[in-house]
Amino acid sequence: MGADALNAFLTDAFPHSKPGSRGHVVSAAPGHVRARIDPNEQALRPGGLISGPTQMGFADMAAYALVLAHIGPVAMAVTSALNYQFLRPCRPGPLFADAHLLRLGKRLAVMDIRIFTDDADKPVGQANVTYAIP
Amino acid sequence: MGADALNAFLTDAFPHSKPGSRGHVVSAAPGHVRARIDPNEQALRPGGLISGPTQMGFADMAAYALVLAHIGPVAMAVTSALNYQFLRPCRPGPLFADAHLLRLGKRLAVMDIRIFTDDADKPVGQANVTYAIP
Amino acid sequence: MGADALNAFLTDAFPHSKPGSRGHVVSAAPGHVRARIDPNEQALRPGGLISGPTQMGFADMAAYALVLAHIGPVAMAVTSALNYQFLRPCRPGPLFADAHLLRLGKRLAVMDIRIFTDDADKPVGQANVTYAIP
Amino acid sequence: MGADALNAFLTDAFPHSKPGSRGHVVSAAPGHVRARIDPNEQALRPGGLISGPTQMGFADMAAYALVLAHIGPVAMAVTSALNYQFLRPCRPGPLFADAHLLRLGKRLAVMDIRIFTDDADKPVGQANVTYAIP
Repeated sequence: MGADALNAFLTDAFPHSKPGSRGHVVSAAPGHVRARIDPNEQALRPGGLISGPTQMGFADMAAYALVLAHIGPVAMAVTSALNYQFLRPCRPGPLFADAHLLRLGKRLAVMDIRIFTDDADKPVGQANVTYAIP
Repeated sequence: MGADALNAFLTDAFPHSKPGSRGHVVSAAPGHVRARIDPNEQALRPGGLISGPTQMGFADMAAYALVLAHIGPVAMAVTSALNYQFLRPCRPGPLFADAHLLRLGKRLAVMDIRIFTDDADKPVGQANVTYAIP
Repeated sequence: MGADALNAFLTDAFPHSKPGSRGHVVSAAPGHVRARIDPNEQALRPGGLISGPTQMGFADMAAYALVLAHIGPVAMAVTSALNYQFLRPCRPGPLFADAHLLRLGKRLAVMDIRIFTDDADKPVGQANVTYAIP
Repeated sequence: MGADALNAFLTDAFPHSKPGSRGHVVSAAPGHVRARIDPNEQALRPGGLISGPTQMGFADMAAYALVLAHIGPVAMAVTSALNYQFLRPCRPGPLFADAHLLRLGKRLAVMDIRIFTDDADKPVGQANVTYAIP
């Protein structure tokens, strides 16, 4: 699936969420998806930073899109584990996620996700996400 | 800090979020906090289940409350890592979090969080959360 | 499988390792295994403490034993993820592991492991271990 | 510190361990260390594969070397968390670790470690390791 098909699928799958709280896919290629989110003020935490749950939810969305890009529109792929390392303060503004496949097996997909604002070499967070494939 | 003081603090600290998206503290005791959230329909994912980000955000809130309960109202305590294991499908309805301190050091607090619906012995998820203490 | 059967199985499965580097099962009950290791001097790290790899390997052994206790002697159950939080300095002497099942599914088993020396309420480490079941 | 200085330091710091059970540094550059281990038969698990604890211990060594390469010979830097994802069967033979800094702070260093045998693009395991800096 390409970026447009992924975004259409996500919009259908999460009818109650808004893109501002979920993000969207910017590009998709074999083994890789890039996503973007423009968090609204509900995403802020004390200190005026983007909250941890906003970052983690965005990482999970990017991982979900990366799985779907490779196995097709299977809504019931589910997260089985997500580990998130908070690396740097996350200032307000657009957030990007670079999601790469570490392994796509028959039952599990394991992915590495880097979350960054303006400098991909200084990520604000890093996640490992495992999805169970139905 | 007790449950009421924690809830007042959280309401002030997150003026843009609603309790339905954040949860509240039910009880606080040395080494332990219990929290509850009543997720709204924005929290649902395909299959009609409570989404992963909702669970992770709730676990993070419970961990934050547990740290504050022990070190006082220090808004700038920040999550440094969160590992979440998804254990069972999370059906709609009230969610509870049992948060326990594994270690409270000078610089880091490490906590175990169990998320469950109607049966604490069959958690829907388990988190390890590390907070950096300023 | 009980403690004796588990220890006999482990001795057969790891013919090149010694109990001092692997540990053994002390007791097994539904949902729970306790294990013990008496680390030798090769297990020390600078500062005279028990090394991290010794603790992680011991946690993995306890998790393996806990899985086997429930599904029988299936040597090819394999670790799919292990998260270890180092909580306190681990002084030399006997180490214990309390391993509990969080969930035993058809394909994955997720376990919580606490590692301690003389006080189970002050663990030196905590692990989440996921095993893939063949 | 360069590769030779790191290896000399590790030999001094772990006088009871052998290179075959610990590995050594192949190269060190800003933000990056590559390490190698040639596991002996004690490192095998059922199925003739390299055991999980061997992989995790090797990842921890590579992370330790990466921290030391940047902050100098401070033996008491200690692991505070290690998350390991097992990705593929690990066949016997030399193992390599590519360790990269995700963030080097004043108090914590967070690193990404990829473990592979003959193909760096198909890692057998991936670790996130956090060290506390004294």
